[in-house]
Amino acid sequence: MGGRPLDVLEASLDEEVTVHLKDGRAFYGALGGYDQHMNVVLEPADEADEDVLGELDVEQIDNTTIIRGDNVVTIRT
Amino acid sequence: MGGRPLDVLEASLDEEVTVHLKDGRAFYGALGGYDQHMNVVLEPADEADEDVLGELDVEQIDNTTIIRGDNVVTIRT
Amino acid sequence: MGGRPLDVLEASLDEEVTVHLKDGRAFYGALGGYDQHMNVVLEPADEADEDVLGELDVEQIDNTTIIRGDNVVTIRT
Amino acid sequence: MGGRPLDVLEASLDEEVTVHLKDGRAFYGALGGYDQHMNVVLEPADEADEDVLGELDVEQIDNTTIIRGDNVVTIRT
Amino acid sequence: MGGRPLDVLEASLDEEVTVHLKDGRAFYGALGGYDQHMNVVLEPADEADEDVLGELDVEQIDNTTIIRGDNVVTIRT
Amino acid sequence: MGGRPLDVLEASLDEEVTVHLKDGRAFYGALGGYDQHMNVVLEPADEADEDVLGELDVEQIDNTTIIRGDNVVTIRT
Amino acid sequence: MGGRPLDVLEASLDEEVTVHLKDGRAFYGALGGYDQHMNVVLEPADEADEDVLGELDVEQIDNTTIIRGDNVVTIRT
Repeated sequence: MGGRPLDVLEASLDEEVTVHLKDGRAFYGALGGYDQHMNVVLEPADEADEDVLGELDVEQIDNTTIIRGDNVVTIRT
Repeated sequence: MGGRPLDVLEASLDEEVTVHLKDGRAFYGALGGYDQHMNVVLEPADEADEDVLGELDVEQIDNTTIIRGDNVVTIRT
Repeated sequence: MGGRPLDVLEASLDEEVTVHLKDGRAFYGALGGYDQHMNVVLEPADEADEDVLGELDVEQIDNTTIIRGDNVVTIRT
Repeated sequence: MGGRPLDVLEASLDEEVTVHLKDGRAFYGALGGYDQHMNVVLEPADEADEDVLGELDVEQIDNTTIIRGDNVVTIRT
Repeated sequence: MGGRPLDVLEASLDEEVTVHLKDGRAFYGALGGYDQHMNVVLEPADEADEDVLGELDVEQIDNTTIIRGDNVVTIRT
Repeated sequence: MGGRPLDVLEASLDEEVTVHLKDGRAFYGALGGYDQHMNVVLEPADEADEDVLGELDVEQIDNTTIIRGDNVVTIRT
Repeated sequence: MGGRPLDVLEASLDEEVTVHLKDGRAFYGALGGYDQHMNVVLEPADEADEDVLGELDVEQIDNTTIIRGDNVVTIRT
């Protein structure tokens, strides 16, 4: 467990993640890809995460969504 | 589906995308080009997307528009 | 039509463009030059663009004006 | 004791740390990894730190959490 | 006329320019030097520019002044 | 006396310094390390500095604290 | 007179300068050193500058002070 930040992203490909942004919003989806700037691609998740849905301001995406890395505060697996 | 962020942009060339900016605005158009900074070129879309038009603050462009990448929050396909 | 962002700028040399800035202002002029940071040079336009003049906060420049790229949101041709 | 910032992070692997962010929040967890941008990975801590729990706005994480380095103000061991 | 941004600065050496900053202030002086970051050096101008003096928030410098480039919005010749 | 900024940091290793941050806070401690980004490591100081303690918003640290350089305004020896 | 920004700093070593920051404050002291990021070192000035002292928000330093370059708006000689 653990490892460097990009190793954790690599291990999380196709897994559901929640990406919290500096503007207070968050996106929940399957991690489709990433790069060294922490730009990430989210794909619609197969199933909702009840815990995450209960969080304020978390949006479940329904389109492939590229998030530019400089907006990211945290990525939670 | 999925892939790294720039792969998704490459696959979206000439497709309609919505680009959401840090200032709360968004632009809807056909992706004419991009570079590694996520600077993007939008061209007027051939047809309106009813779903997107219903969103607040989304503008359908009517001129070739270059968006500087550091303004981008998300690009949705 | 289309192409990468710097290709669009190259094709727009000596053409009228509108440059929208992060502070809400915009400048209308002929594109005199640019570089890879999207720093741009605007020259006074030969003729006014009635559509652009109708927009709020668009200023028609009357001196050669260098705009530092990190202020730019969009450049419209 | 002491050493360069990345040496201190290296020495703190698997140890509990508190990461304070620019938005006023903080995360408490075990340091799972880091990189040269001070992107860090936090893992759930084995035990709570009573002192830290008493601090305002410190959250004990319960999922692997990547924090993008540009949000960080301080990391305390 | 025209040219890339740094070419315009090179051609403006020893000429009066107005440098507008992100904080709303502006400085009027003779361009003494510049570098690739658009850091600029202003020297006191030999003569006042009546037009510029009429503008709000433009200051005529009376000491050699280095302006760090990341504060610059526009440089007008 | 004097010297380049990193020379001054090198000369201040193990000495008490006060680091003022962009958010208005400041930390007082012994300089344990630094790097070229002005990321710094502060260690608990052996003795309090009465002058510094009188300053508003200066905190004497009691844990090894890494401060990410982009938060720093000044470092005073 | 004039020259590139770093040439002006080189020529100003050991001379009194006023450094204005983005947060509205300013520091007055002798320029002890600088680097290519415009990080600067100020040393206590031998004598007060009556003109500068009259300015609002200018502080005469009494300790060696490193200022991180990204806070700087202007450096006046």
